[in-house]
Amino acid sequence: MNDPVVSKASAVKAASAVLYNCTTSRKNRLLRAIRERLGSEASSVLRENEADRVHAADLGLSSVLMDRLTLNEKRIRQMMDGIRDIIALPDPIGTVLERQRRPNGLRIEKVRVPLGAVGIIYESRPNVTIDASSLCLKSGNAVLLRGGSEAIRTNRSLVRIIKLALEDVDLPPGCVEFIDSTERSAVLTMVKQGNFLDVIIPRGSQQLIQLVQENSTVPVIAHGEGNCHVFVDSPADIAKAVEIVYNAKVQRPSVCNAAEKLLVHEKIAGKFLPQIAERLSHAGVLIKGDERTRTIITNASPVSDVDWRTEYLDLVIAVRVVSSLDGAIAHINKFGSHHSDAIVTAAKAHGERFVREVDSAAVYINASTRFTDGFEFGLGAEIGISTQKLHARGPMGLSELTSTKFIVRGSGQIRE
Amino acid sequence: MNDPVVSKASAVKAASAVLYNCTTSRKNRLLRAIRERLGSEASSVLRENEADRVHAADLGLSSVLMDRLTLNEKRIRQMMDGIRDIIALPDPIGTVLERQRRPNGLRIEKVRVPLGAVGIIYESRPNVTIDASSLCLKSGNAVLLRGGSEAIRTNRSLVRIIKLALEDVDLPPGCVEFIDSTERSAVLTMVKQGNFLDVIIPRGSQQLIQLVQENSTVPVIAHGEGNCHVFVDSPADIAKAVEIVYNAKVQRPSVCNAAEKLLVHEKIAGKFLPQIAERLSHAGVLIKGDERTRTIITNASPVSDVDWRTEYLDLVIAVRVVSSLDGAIAHINKFGSHHSDAIVTAAKAHGERFVREVDSAAVYINASTRFTDGFEFGLGAEIGISTQKLHARGPMGLSELTSTKFIVRGSGQIRE
Repeated sequence: MNDPVVSKASAVKAASAVLYNCTTSRKNRLLRAIRERLGSEASSVLRENEADRVHAADLGLSSVLMDRLTLNEKRIRQMMDGIRDIIALPDPIGTVLERQRRPNGLRIEKVRVPLGAVGIIYESRPNVTIDASSLCLKSGNAVLLRGGSEAIRTNRSLVRIIKLALEDVDLPPGCVEFIDSTERSAVLTMVKQGNFLDVIIPRGSQQLIQLVQENSTVPVIAHGEGNCHVFVDSPADIAKAVEIVYNAKVQRPSVCNAAEKLLVHEKIAGKFLPQIAERLSHAGVLIKGDERTRTIITNASPVSDVDWRTEYLDLVIAVRVVSSLDGAIAHINKFGSHHSDAIVTAAKAHGERFVREVDSAAVYINASTRFTDGFEFGLGAEIGISTQKLHARGPMGLSELTSTKFIVRGSGQIRE
Repeated sequence: MNDPVVSKASAVKAASAVLYNCTTSRKNRLLRAIRERLGSEASSVLRENEADRVHAADLGLSSVLMDRLTLNEKRIRQMMDGIRDIIALPDPIGTVLERQRRPNGLRIEKVRVPLGAVGIIYESRPNVTIDASSLCLKSGNAVLLRGGSEAIRTNRSLVRIIKLALEDVDLPPGCVEFIDSTERSAVLTMVKQGNFLDVIIPRGSQQLIQLVQENSTVPVIAHGEGNCHVFVDSPADIAKAVEIVYNAKVQRPSVCNAAEKLLVHEKIAGKFLPQIAERLSHAGVLIKGDERTRTIITNASPVSDVDWRTEYLDLVIAVRVVSSLDGAIAHINKFGSHHSDAIVTAAKAHGERFVREVDSAAVYINASTRFTDGFEFGLGAEIGISTQKLHARGPMGLSELTSTKFIVRGSGQIRE
């Protein structure tokens, strides 16, 4: 019990009992307090973030990761806006999902309740500290956070702010705890706290997800990779196809719903590939292609078997020419990560077969994969994007941070 | 890949792709074929069950377990009736749960899809082989079964029947596979098949659940113990309280929703305890009690700390006198297994506080805990009773054997 991870998990569990029955107005009061504290203490957060960045620069962090790590006035403002949005969202707790009266007179309701104690393991972005805590608190959950080592000073200062706000509204400090250690062993201890935690949400690389899945005794909601595909069918509107593929690949290549693979029907490849190749090359995208692709895009690099399974998160795309809709569906179901996959087609029946048969969290007809997102899907906010089938799949909002209970009201019923 | 567990998991995964898009009528045709084969091959199943029982008797199996293991004409008929009921249930697959049109014109649907490949680990009752397979198949899932060693001959013969039915309707034999080994190592291999299985459902003792949770890389839906409580409040209708406690303890003590603990408000203990003690003693129930209980039920045995956490599954009950509703709620949340807990009260406000604050899958006012059951809750059939908070909590029917996907239909939308 001397291990700080264990004692923090235990504190989170104890606090979850207080949050379990917290009224909506009190939870919102807490969120307002966090928002105010974030505004008034912004300069100290930015100072700590500066220190994190100096340290990260010494370690030679890439510019993409450095950008993820960076906080500034505008990003603090965005976090505050995020809290304001979460305050405005309806409280999911207590919602009656089903209601029935049984022949024996029992009245049964299925109602939403908090999950309880939630563990979140995330990487470089410090805004997750505020976003995830706010979503957990609004849904009545206590939370144990474990952020990335690059952001530890920033995260520490953000958690200090949350603790001040908890004090402001007289809620226990254990409602939000932070594992202030950069050791991998802390993660391994965290995922063994099945007595205290009800769920662990790991957000990040496949290596992180796997580490958690292989070691956790706590139920996991994995937020893993997106090896997303766009399939350009025949017939298809080529101009639309070019825009969709370009958007899915280039608009923000570092995120999980960006396209990593392009499949093209052989009948349209000769026309389509030169056009998309030109647009992508212009944007600096490295194109890799299978043999048939390279007969059309002659300067494409060869593709290896590993490519088909790789999430690049970069300006790279691998292209394959397929002979049929079936071939495209089979490729996606075999090599994809079941995150987000799109078909561009002018044949309605092909689109419908694609979305029925491709086994992914989000399947698209004639739209960019980049829309897989809690805000774009109208959830108001998101804790992340689940890549597993259990409990929640795809963008997760407040409702997905809840469990249910059956409430049964009787008048003395016994079972015969 | 030579390990039979691995190759069976792989076969189940492959078959799950066929079931993923199977029509309702074809799935029902399969279920009818299983039902018919079960009728026509009943005598061979009963022969194998006889052999299991002879072997179990040699090993000195308890009479409770022997009863669970036993099949006879009537129980075969019940399995057939169960299949008929499942055929009659609506197919959950394809149901649209949410539908919205976004401001950008995207039409988003959230639809039910199969989980995929389901692993089920269960103990002595061979009817689970048929019940669980039928529910999985109806919901479009392939299934890998691992039954108890005592029932291995019976289970083998039941799976042979299912395979014949799969052949009858031309579906791959991998739709239902059976781990024909009594080795514990087979379970340990099974729970590592994260590449092939989408979920593992362990049904049984806390030791089994823990073994699975500690070793599984596959998401788990635990079907664990029920350490269920009845709290008799003050004020309460004593006659009703006696009937409810008696029913919850005695009607079927070997099941997870039977009461194991009785909490009594100090104000009513003097009147209530002698009456319930008489009824329970008459039924052969061993009463254990805390100090205050033993001043009233003088022949009650002393209770140890271990008792408060123990699921007896037998004619034993532990009794505690508490000073308040708060004390009862705190005791249940601390020592209970969060399965099913009931209050008997004449004070409406007490009942409502109890069901709000007790963190269990099913909470009751003035009814027996014995109602926590898929049939009693109107699900039509049940795969079991989940004791975890993630994905499904309480009785699980067909819907709980599904996941969801987002289908997004556009007309060329890209993200700005």
